Amino acid sequence: MRLRGRKGIREAIEKQRDLIVLEPALYKGKWAEVFGNGNPIHVELGMGKGQFISEMSRRNPGINFIGVDMYDELIRRASEKVRIAHGIEESAVDVSLENIRLALFNIERLEEVFDENELERIYLNFSDPWPKKKHARRRLTHAGFVHKYKHALNERGEIHFKTDSRSLFEFSLNSFADLDLRMRNISLDLHGGFEEGFNPDHVMTEYETKFAKQGMNIHRVEVVLGSRALAEHVERLQEEQQS
Amino acid sequence: MRLRGRKGIREAIEKQRDLIVLEPALYKGKWAEVFGNGNPIHVELGMGKGQFISEMSRRNPGINFIGVDMYDELIRRASEKVRIAHGIEESAVDVSLENIRLALFNIERLEEVFDENELERIYLNFSDPWPKKKHARRRLTHAGFVHKYKHALNERGEIHFKTDSRSLFEFSLNSFADLDLRMRNISLDLHGGFEEGFNPDHVMTEYETKFAKQGMNIHRVEVVLGSRALAEHVERLQEEQQS
Ligand SMILES: C[S@@+](CC[C@H](N)C(=O)[O-])C[C@H]1O[C@@H](n2cnc3c(N)ncnc32)[C@H](O)[C@@H]1O
Ligand SMILES: C[S@@+](CC[C@H](N)C(=O)[O-])C[C@H]1O[C@@H](n2cnc3c(N)ncnc32)[C@H](O)[C@@H]1O
Repeated sequence: MRLRGRKGIREAIEKQRDLIVLEPALYKGKWAEVFGNGNPIHVELGMGKGQFISEMSRRNPGINFIGVDMYDELIRRASEKVRIAHGIEESAVDVSLENIRLALFNIERLEEVFDENELERIYLNFSDPWPKKKHARRRLTHAGFVHKYKHALNERGEIHFKTDSRSLFEFSLNSFADLDLRMRNISLDLHGGFEEGFNPDHVMTEYETKFAKQGMNIHRVEVVLGSRALAEHVERLQEEQQS
Repeated sequence: MRLRGRKGIREAIEKQRDLIVLEPALYKGKWAEVFGNGNPIHVELGMGKGQFISEMSRRNPGINFIGVDMYDELIRRASEKVRIAHGIEESAVDVSLENIRLALFNIERLEEVFDENELERIYLNFSDPWPKKKHARRRLTHAGFVHKYKHALNERGEIHFKTDSRSLFEFSLNSFADLDLRMRNISLDLHGGFEEGFNPDHVMTEYETKFAKQGMNIHRVEVVLGSRALAEHVERLQEEQQS
């Protein structure tokens, strides 16, 4: 891979203003217009190099995806992955037909970027564990962040979280439980456990690929926040119980 | 230790009719009379050799404890531990001043033994994992069992569950979540993790001692079922949040 200085990164990003959104706050409440349709919007917060979001967006044309990170170099690298996954030429500047955008901002600023009910799903994949207690507020599953997510999510809203960190997962389960949120499909070993085992349709992230290869076990949970998502979940459980 | 045949076990048990309850269904709704006071009753379901319950009962004189198992040999061995912990002579037959009883029955029969609201806490320690899917109903945290527990527990009712089995713990978290029960103090590594680490006041079971020595990590969760316990829990969380 070519090495790029800061200037090179910036240049590469500036050239892709349709795929990469450098001032995302301008589109608060207007993301449907950005995509040109009213499809549900799924966001990955802290996407890193973008393996997960580019593959997800390729597989799910009926969903709009936004990959978020705060480092421009990662945004640039993710843009390469997106272009490959979607077969977009490097020289093409108009991605208006595509179902994915990459947004450069700090997740702390989520409320400035997304309006109430604007999102349907938030993915948190291998978020930084921030192991020190005094940094607990920086963990992306801390109550402070979850309140922001709740605000941005609609009636079908869910959070899908996976991590290798047992400590972060433990913290997160307690955080969700203390907020009285409904959890579902909790997995302490995504690639093993009692049930049938690993689902090949599951899209892996960079970190997941690396950690799974090392034999580390991956934790996962879905949090059902939206009123409608919750009602449907409860209905499904009742049906299962009856059968 | 002396080896005992089936007859020897039975004899040893028969001699301790005050400590060991062989027909527990006779006392349904009358356990307060058995103990001679109205103190809260905490039960361990599947106590094994009784290390946990004998130590808990020694440390907490204001609580009445009942250790349950379905094997008479385990009841007999637990009775030895209880006598040592409480300093009761082997020849003494009247334990009416003590806060512990051992009951021989199959947990399936819980409703025949305890009346509605008769218990305040149920301990499940290192319950058999029943790894095969077709045996899922036998796991002590399966919905079928949890309904029985809920019935027996009072307004302060809680379930405290710990296990070395990651798969059983995963199953149990999902079981509690799907029943919309409130979880608290979830730990995926009781002797480690983000927080201060192991609490020396924590009473260990036989299995826990063995597994902890092997470096296996222990999982733990508290389930808050009783209406009053839940209200107090929520109040405490709100206070914590404000401070
Ligand atoms: C450990 S990496 C995981 C990357 C990817 N999700 C994966 O699973 O391979 C965490 C990512 O989150 C990003 N990140 C962390 N905190 C962030 C914040 N406050 N705002 C935006 N991005 C953040 C980091 O830049 C990094 O790319
Ligand atoms: C794995 S041992 C754990 C013993 C102890 N709690 C410990 O942590 O060391 C499980 C115990 O539960 C008892 N048990 C399992 N199923 C039971 C049932 N249905 N009724 C009564 N006891 C049961 C077994 O006899 C065994 O003693």
